[in-house]
Parts: sequence; C-alpha cells; structure tokens
Amino acid sequence: MPTKVAYLGPRGTYAEKAAYALVKLDKLSEATLLPCSGIRSVIENVATKHCEAAVVPIENSVEGGVTETLDALWGHPNLFIKSAVVIPIRHALIGSGSLEEISEVLSHPQALAQCSGWLNQNLPNCLQLPTSSTSEAVRMVQGSKFRAAIGSTKAALEINGLSKLAYPINDVQGNCTRFVLLQNNESNQEGDIASFAFSLHSNKPGSLLKALNCIASLGLNMSRIESRPSKRELGEYIFFIDIDLKDKLIDTNKKLKRLLEPLCENIVYFGSYKNEEFEID
Amino acid sequence: MPTKVAYLGPRGTYAEKAAYALVKLDKLSEATLLPCSGIRSVIENVATKHCEAAVVPIENSVEGGVTETLDALWGHPNLFIKSAVVIPIRHALIGSGSLEEISEVLSHPQALAQCSGWLNQNLPNCLQLPTSSTSEAVRMVQGSKFRAAIGSTKAALEINGLSKLAYPINDVQGNCTRFVLLQNNESNQEGDIASFAFSLHSNKPGSLLKALNCIASLGLNMSRIESRPSKRELGEYIFFIDIDLKDKLIDTNKKLKRLLEPLCENIVYFGSYKNEEFEID
Repeated sequence: MPTKVAYLGPRGTYAEKAAYALVKLDKLSEATLLPCSGIRSVIENVATKHCEAAVVPIENSVEGGVTETLDALWGHPNLFIKSAVVIPIRHALIGSGSLEEISEVLSHPQALAQCSGWLNQNLPNCLQLPTSSTSEAVRMVQGSKFRAAIGSTKAALEINGLSKLAYPINDVQGNCTRFVLLQNNESNQEGDIASFAFSLHSNKPGSLLKALNCIASLGLNMSRIESRPSKRELGEYIFFIDIDLKDKLIDTNKKLKRLLEPLCENIVYFGSYKNEEFEID
Repeated sequence: MPTKVAYLGPRGTYAEKAAYALVKLDKLSEATLLPCSGIRSVIENVATKHCEAAVVPIENSVEGGVTETLDALWGHPNLFIKSAVVIPIRHALIGSGSLEEISEVLSHPQALAQCSGWLNQNLPNCLQLPTSSTSEAVRMVQGSKFRAAIGSTKAALEINGLSKLAYPINDVQGNCTRFVLLQNNESNQEGDIASFAFSLHSNKPGSLLKALNCIASLGLNMSRIESRPSKRELGEYIFFIDIDLKDKLIDTNKKLKRLLEPLCENIVYFGSYKNEEFEID
C-alpha cells in the first residue's frame, strides 16, 4: 500500500534527510514525501488522516525540546511515535562572495542560535535575519555578494554559484536532532524508549516528586524530562518523559501507567519505539 | 548615581515596558535605558560592566522558558536576579489595509507562535514571515495594503496610518511574560522566589530524584522546573528551579545549597528576589 509521509519542508532541509531515513528504517512501502510549511501543518496532515505518517523534529542536543512538536503531541492523544532517528546537524556558511564582504546572515532562528558563538567571533557586525527554513535562506542569498545563509552543505552544492564559505560553523560539534515518525494508531511494538507526558492534579509541594518516585520504583531510568507550560497560568506544567526500556519486561509500560494514573490530571502516552543513530554527510 | 540599563530593543517592545516597570520597582535613580539587539548582547552589556543592570525575558506562560536567557544565566555565574515583573502580553494585528486584503503576516517567531491558532482560523492562506522583534514587524508593514504585523497596540498608535485590524489575537487570554532585572553583584536580599540551576554528577536512575528530595525535605515548593540540554550530548541536562520562599526562614536558602552541592557537578545560584504582577495597556 502506498504511504504518504508529511514532513517539515521545503525540500533540502535536515527534516527531509530524516524523513528518508525513517521511511527506510520503518520499511514503508511506496512512500511519497509531502513537504509542508510549519510543524503544525505536518501534524494536522497525519491527525486528519490526509497522510498516513508524519516526520517532525522533537529534540535538539543544543536547543532542547522542539516546543511545537511537544505541544502538538499533547494536543493529539491519537498520535503515536512509531520510530526515531538521531541526525547529526553540521551547518555551513553558504554564499557566493568572500567572507570579508558578508554583511547579512540569513537562516532559521534555531540555526542562527546554534551558530551564535561562531557568528559573534567571525562576523560580529553582521545583521542576522531569520527565515522560515535553512533551505529558504540558501535560496534567498543566491546572486548576492554581501548576503550569506546558514544551511547544509548539500543545499549549497545544489544551487549554481553558491559555495561553502566556512564549515562546520555550529558552536557544538556533537550537535544533533532527534526526529520521530508519527502515525495514527498505536502499534504496541516493543522498543528502546517509551515516551509520555502528564499534568498533575495539584501544584502542591512534592506532587512531581511522587510521580518520579513511581518511575524509580520500577527500576526505570528517565533518559529525558522536559517541562512545558500548561498555557493556563505561569507555574502550571506538563512534564514530558522518556523512559529507557532496554532489557525491561514487556509489561513494564502497563505497570507504569497504572501507577501514574491516580496522580495525574491527564496523561498522554506516545508509544514505545526504536531509536537509531544515523550517520550522514 | 546614574544607572545604565540594557534591554532587548528596539524601542516599543514589551521588553521596554518591562524595563520601565523594573526601574520603577527597584527605585533605580537617574536610569537611562539602552536598547540592544539580541538577548546575548543585553547580557554581555551587564556581564562586562558596560551597563549596571539588564532586563531580559525569562519565561512566557505559553512558550515556556526563554532558552537564550537561561543559557546566559548558566554561563555567567556572576550575574544575579535582582527583581522580576510579570507583564501581560496582548497582541494586535496591525496594518493599514482591511483584514480581507492581508496576504502576509510579519512578527517575531514567538509572537507568531502565540497567535498561531487565530492565524490558522482567520488568515489560513497568509504567509508568515519572521522578524527580529514585534516593533520591527510593525515598522515593516507601514504603507502596505497586503502586509500586517503582530505587535502591541501602543506600537500601532505611534506610527502614522497604522491601526488595529484585530485585537486581542493571542490564543491564550492569560498570556504573560516574566522579565528579570540582572545585576553583577549578589544583593543578599530577602525575596519571594529563589532561583538556581544545577547539573548532576551522573545520569544514573534516581539522580534527579535525590536532588528534588533535598528540596522537599526542607518543606519547599518548586514553583518551576525546566530542563535544558547540557549541549554536550542528548540526554544530559541542566535543571532550572524556582523555589517559593514566602514565609520561609532566611537561612533556608543556605541549607538548600549545602544539601544540593554534593549531588551536583555544577550549581549556579541566581539569587532571591521579589516578583510583582504588572497591569498595563
């Protein structure tokens, strides 16, 4: 059966690389990729069943959780994570002039943030202009001597007249992003990671502690904890948790849900899934 | 003595309102405000003692922690929070055409995110263009019939020919941002909130739990917990904690530091300070 996969476009971004990697990993047959503008639109496509799957970034090693993805998962309890890949991010400064002539640097705000140390040191007087994606930035600097973009080296090679002015320019060399493949049904598969989020009944002292004690009581390690505002008032949070499931019994997951449910106002389970590291470039 | 206060410019943003409120709250004499471009530059100004104080956003009720501020506080252990204000954020759609003609909406990425539901419903086909501040967006739509900006109503009134096309358009009505005043020396004052951040010695099961148990053992309530990546690898975190100090003994703070230090690789204390709610518009 052909599978339509929505992803964060446009073409040529890291998200597209991740989508190809996840399609391969999940052995999706006859997959066609659909670039969408904005994470919200990617998620809507799979939530409304216009596409069978969606690929979105969920966490970056430098910038942290991708807030739009976390909020969308919380808001769509019918979506589940099927699998995950970790993609190394290596940014290049791309342009057609020389480094000395550059007075404006364009890129997605996250890419600008990930290179801010390099920019401060090497192009301290450059204006930084945000764009909606790294590949849009690359297209926008074509033909200009004084504008440069931050993007992937592949993007530079695909457009005539552009070349790498500096590479790599990200401040942290181990910079990587985890992307997840989302589907509309729970697969009940085994996996390396289980992910879920919860909000607590009360904001009393020790409420979060009780929940975390439940997790520890089963001998489980949290590999990630991230708090997001509930959006109702300052001080009310949703907690996003990843649990390391390696070498655990299959029913650990169910036990955990039973323990947590009485403490939580709401709990959304995102599934258990395999996580692969990916080497590209 | 005159006091130079750096803040996130340009003029006319919510950050400027916050800076005026904090100067008044802290009774800073002969204060002059210095607008800077980018949170990093605001922080550098106070860290290098070019300014005596700096005002930066630290947390929004919808978008969560302001990552650049949290990272800068962690990276500058000599900076302390002197006081905080909570400013209500109410966005307007600003332009000179009619709503039906608008095909592009410009604003800071956080403002676009805070209005994304309204935009999806009312202007679903509009291109969303990121700018470096809300007030820059307002300036950029001047004279255009098909472009609109998201910003504060005050910004609209200050520029000839612009008016409110819709107000308020933020998805969450209680949307507010906490701004803090930073200084270069600890004031050892009493306050409502104590803030600090720590990284743990190990990522073993239960490490975070031990630290949170220390806090609970003193009967203290965390009013906020936020995790940020350590930037070294996925799965290593720095935890940012706010503690509610109301009605607590003065030395609670010191006791807490003594309990936490053996568990932490690094601990940075941001100070205890007063927090005020502010009503503007």
